[in-house]
Amino acid sequence: METFKAHLDKFISIDDQEFASVISYFQIINTGKKENLMLEGEICKFKYFVLEGCLRKFFINEKGIEQTTEFAIENWWISDTFAFEKQMKSDFNIQAVEKSRILMIDYSSQEHLLEKHPVMERYFRMVYQTAYAAAEKRLRYLYEMTKEEYYIHFSTLYPWFIQRIPQYLVASFLGFTPEYLSEIRAKLRS
Amino acid sequence: METFKAHLDKFISIDDQEFASVISYFQIINTGKKENLMLEGEICKFKYFVLEGCLRKFFINEKGIEQTTEFAIENWWISDTFAFEKQMKSDFNIQAVEKSRILMIDYSSQEHLLEKHPVMERYFRMVYQTAYAAAEKRLRYLYEMTKEEYYIHFSTLYPWFIQRIPQYLVASFLGFTPEYLSEIRAKLRS
Repeated sequence: METFKAHLDKFISIDDQEFASVISYFQIINTGKKENLMLEGEICKFKYFVLEGCLRKFFINEKGIEQTTEFAIENWWISDTFAFEKQMKSDFNIQAVEKSRILMIDYSSQEHLLEKHPVMERYFRMVYQTAYAAAEKRLRYLYEMTKEEYYIHFSTLYPWFIQRIPQYLVASFLGFTPEYLSEIRAKLRS
Repeated sequence: METFKAHLDKFISIDDQEFASVISYFQIINTGKKENLMLEGEICKFKYFVLEGCLRKFFINEKGIEQTTEFAIENWWISDTFAFEKQMKSDFNIQAVEKSRILMIDYSSQEHLLEKHPVMERYFRMVYQTAYAAAEKRLRYLYEMTKEEYYIHFSTLYPWFIQRIPQYLVASFLGFTPEYLSEIRAKLRS
């Protein structure tokens, strides 16, 4: 749990006693590679924080192909925010890309946590603010960049993205076919 | 100010006395149509809440064309979140689409406000959470929908969008040329 405590310390001041209470609202689970945490069409019960490993969020498109929209590595949250907050069915799937160690919290525990520890409002305000700022940037890139530029941008900004994520998932995230990604990589190498 | 009080009441409990203190951290301004609030390349000093009217955020693309990425009507916030929180130069412009009445707050006032009124952490947590949830949905639409589907989706979900926003800005937001938007509209009417 030192990982999560160290992560919280970056945003808020929280002593060991309060942390012990905060952490009691969460569950820890271990997942195998490719294990599903959330399925499309089911109520979005949890949000997930990656202690170790990597998760991804995807939906099945019209052609029946998995379209990845988000990855989460260490110290990042992932969920279907809309469906979680409304406790509705999700349009997304969440799956482990690697063997992972996950902290998760359900909606009712989150409400109790926020009531008992208002400092966590500040923490989650900062988490969502950062996530929203990243989404604003990403939307701009989608307007502005060609697919090739977007790939180069991602590889440069997030080396882990290319090193850790299997190539077919990188393609899925970027909206490429795996063949097109191979072409771009070959072109960049030459 | 009743507008902002009524808006806050949807998220948090705040009595008149506390509200009087909260509102003292904000400034109110009136803008004319097409008036600029924030310019690309300048420090992002404020975030803006629309009391009345409509603002938009845009950047100038490689071809020198204004690319709108976001609109804000009544009861919505708009800023360059990343640049505001880091007090850095923004990559965006913010401009009034209509004559507007705006509440704005600078970074240092926001920090003092949050320190004095922690209940506003809860409010902003919910604001950013909602904004992030909307961005997650929008990213999915960008993967999933054709431009024509995206236009129909927007017109259906947000009638104000088509009714209030000039057609050339609707085109700019959707990444269409104005000609292409006219074609789609003609096709949908027929």
